[in-house]
Amino acid sequence: MAHQQSINFNNQPKACLLQPETIAGIRLGTVCAGIRQTEKHDLVVVELAQQTTTAAVLTRNAFQAAPVIIARQHLSASPRFLVINSGNANAGTGELGLRNTLDICQSVAQCTKTTATQVLPFSTGVIGEQLPVEAIKAAIPSALQNLGEDGWLRAANAIMTTDTCAKTATASFTISGQQFHVTGISKGSGMIHPNMATMLAFIATDARVPRASLQACLDQVIPETFNAVTVDGDTSTNDACVLMATGQTGGPDFQAKTAAWQVLTDAVHTVCSSLAEQMVRDGEGATKFIRIQVDNARSRDEADQVGKTIAGSALVKTAFFASDPNWGRILAAIGRSPVDNLDVNCVSLWINDVNVLTNGNPSPDYREEDGQQAMSAQDILVRVTLGRGNACATVLSCDLSYDYVRINAEYRT
Amino acid sequence: MAHQQSINFNNQPKACLLQPETIAGIRLGTVCAGIRQTEKHDLVVVELAQQTTTAAVLTRNAFQAAPVIIARQHLSASPRFLVINSGNANAGTGELGLRNTLDICQSVAQCTKTTATQVLPFSTGVIGEQLPVEAIKAAIPSALQNLGEDGWLRAANAIMTTDTCAKTATASFTISGQQFHVTGISKGSGMIHPNMATMLAFIATDARVPRASLQACLDQVIPETFNAVTVDGDTSTNDACVLMATGQTGGPDFQAKTAAWQVLTDAVHTVCSSLAEQMVRDGEGATKFIRIQVDNARSRDEADQVGKTIAGSALVKTAFFASDPNWGRILAAIGRSPVDNLDVNCVSLWINDVNVLTNGNPSPDYREEDGQQAMSAQDILVRVTLGRGNACATVLSCDLSYDYVRINAEYRT
Repeated sequence: MAHQQSINFNNQPKACLLQPETIAGIRLGTVCAGIRQTEKHDLVVVELAQQTTTAAVLTRNAFQAAPVIIARQHLSASPRFLVINSGNANAGTGELGLRNTLDICQSVAQCTKTTATQVLPFSTGVIGEQLPVEAIKAAIPSALQNLGEDGWLRAANAIMTTDTCAKTATASFTISGQQFHVTGISKGSGMIHPNMATMLAFIATDARVPRASLQACLDQVIPETFNAVTVDGDTSTNDACVLMATGQTGGPDFQAKTAAWQVLTDAVHTVCSSLAEQMVRDGEGATKFIRIQVDNARSRDEADQVGKTIAGSALVKTAFFASDPNWGRILAAIGRSPVDNLDVNCVSLWINDVNVLTNGNPSPDYREEDGQQAMSAQDILVRVTLGRGNACATVLSCDLSYDYVRINAEYRT
Repeated sequence: MAHQQSINFNNQPKACLLQPETIAGIRLGTVCAGIRQTEKHDLVVVELAQQTTTAAVLTRNAFQAAPVIIARQHLSASPRFLVINSGNANAGTGELGLRNTLDICQSVAQCTKTTATQVLPFSTGVIGEQLPVEAIKAAIPSALQNLGEDGWLRAANAIMTTDTCAKTATASFTISGQQFHVTGISKGSGMIHPNMATMLAFIATDARVPRASLQACLDQVIPETFNAVTVDGDTSTNDACVLMATGQTGGPDFQAKTAAWQVLTDAVHTVCSSLAEQMVRDGEGATKFIRIQVDNARSRDEADQVGKTIAGSALVKTAFFASDPNWGRILAAIGRSPVDNLDVNCVSLWINDVNVLTNGNPSPDYREEDGQQAMSAQDILVRVTLGRGNACATVLSCDLSYDYVRINAEYRT
């Protein structure tokens, strides 16, 4: 707890238009390559100072997009640049997709006197179409020309697809009088199936962190942040989360499992948690933000499964959209969660502070008008206690509205 | 194959308004008990002739509705009556829900001089509200007064909730010159989460089938029919499928695994398959019927999982609604299916007869306009070959439209 006091969490969960803290050693440039639209910036180049370490969590989808396959190969070669495009996922594009990605990495390398293996490529957008590779290559020099430490917000805007606002977050912390920063951006708003080529996140710190320790930090943070909004437990053809540590502030090496590393990890957690929440709030067609907290489970995994089953139910989501306290749908979702020998007589349920179900029975004090009022809120907490252990998990979700259907029916047109 | 020739499958997959074949020994009565609406018939009583055997498959949801719990207990006591209500699922209703269900069984027993344990109760509708038990009890005598062998279509209408048409199917077959019949009705149209208190099916035959053999028949038929439209692999708080054999036609005992039993099972399969298809076609808000066929899997279970992952994807469903050949979404769904070590370079994909993907690569002959045309059809076959075995499975699904959201947002209002 002593360390907590030295952390100054300066989050901006809703402040999409604010410039986040810069990170010494990270410069970002953007440009319109005309991939899908004629004016929107859709290409980002990120320059990493020498000595920067890089960790990543990439999709587990069997159909991995070409950039994901290449990024995985290039991760071990001390990356110096990221090249990110929106508008086209370069997924399901076969051999040509791989060649195009390598071609783009090569183009960045040529312009920057690095090698192609030092460039990490990322793409997001429509699946199954080939990249306009010449247009992208032609735009790279312009992106490099406007590289700047203040490019975070521009980059957050440039990686958007169906997102309606840019997502940025910043945290800082002080150790032995020295201040460190963590800044991140992300994109993604398809929240019923967020594992569908929807999510990219790029986070950087000016702390100096050995690569293995940086990966350990990311591995600890992801399950409770970005993966807490994942409905199906796995990731898309393109999903990627990259954490970079420039070490430009100097100071100690943040070795894994040390107290200082835990403070850093808490700060990264705060940034990722904020970005995850921003993505859910910007969920396609979302009108409500729903936090599902499952307590007293036998394991975190079990609690997570129950939360994700509730979060993934189209019937529950439409009830939230309608402000309808149809809590039976939540019950049915709990009941079909993959939990062994669930005793429903130990299950209780609250919607905000309205107690709906107590030990498997409708709560005697429950009144429909209270349920109605709870469901009408814009932020809703669904709390479930399973009465079979001490583990818990939280899942973030949103409602299912007409606009979800409209957005996804019209996406390519 | 010799037996196939003697089967006369007389299906009516779309003929919701036709009276199905009667089954000697089964009489059905319906009435308006005013459970949710003031005029619609919402209560059904089914009388089973003495000696009728009964098999059932009931929900595996941990939150089992009161009628499911009671029906499971009563199944072993040679059921003589079913009592079915729509409009209220009597689920999530605790101890009082159980007492109410028993009260209704007792009421049927008193009117018919049987015992309460010989009455199987079923409910479908809103979860979490207590049954209007006095209204139901008061209506039972009227339902018994209009019992008739010709009550199938009336019953099919009375069990509907959000269904837009009644679902019936009939098949007949001849063995040694003797004709037998199978008739069934079902309700259910919430197809994104069909495991949510949505499905009831009642099927009867005039053949004489020992109870264990009847259960074996149902167990063989369910996975490829009703469970082929289940997105999440398990069933709702109220889902139930009941198969009754009156034996009124006389003839042989249909002992399990005999050739005659297989002919009967094929006929039951035909009826259940037709009912399952009718349910999908009447899916809430559905504008398209989608058959997903997965071939060359290592196991039927694996093929089924891939099919259900595609069928359950909201992004795939909205693409079908929009007639958008966004096949990348299908690819992404295949890729996140729970299949170990899927080699995407062995996967091929067709939409109707348009070859989209060949061995993991976009098919050279694929043209967007062909995909567009295929997606514009009202009936769409998605065919996936995994290239890793000989097993296959078919899953039935529908698209996701604005009307799905409207229907489920407005359900209780």
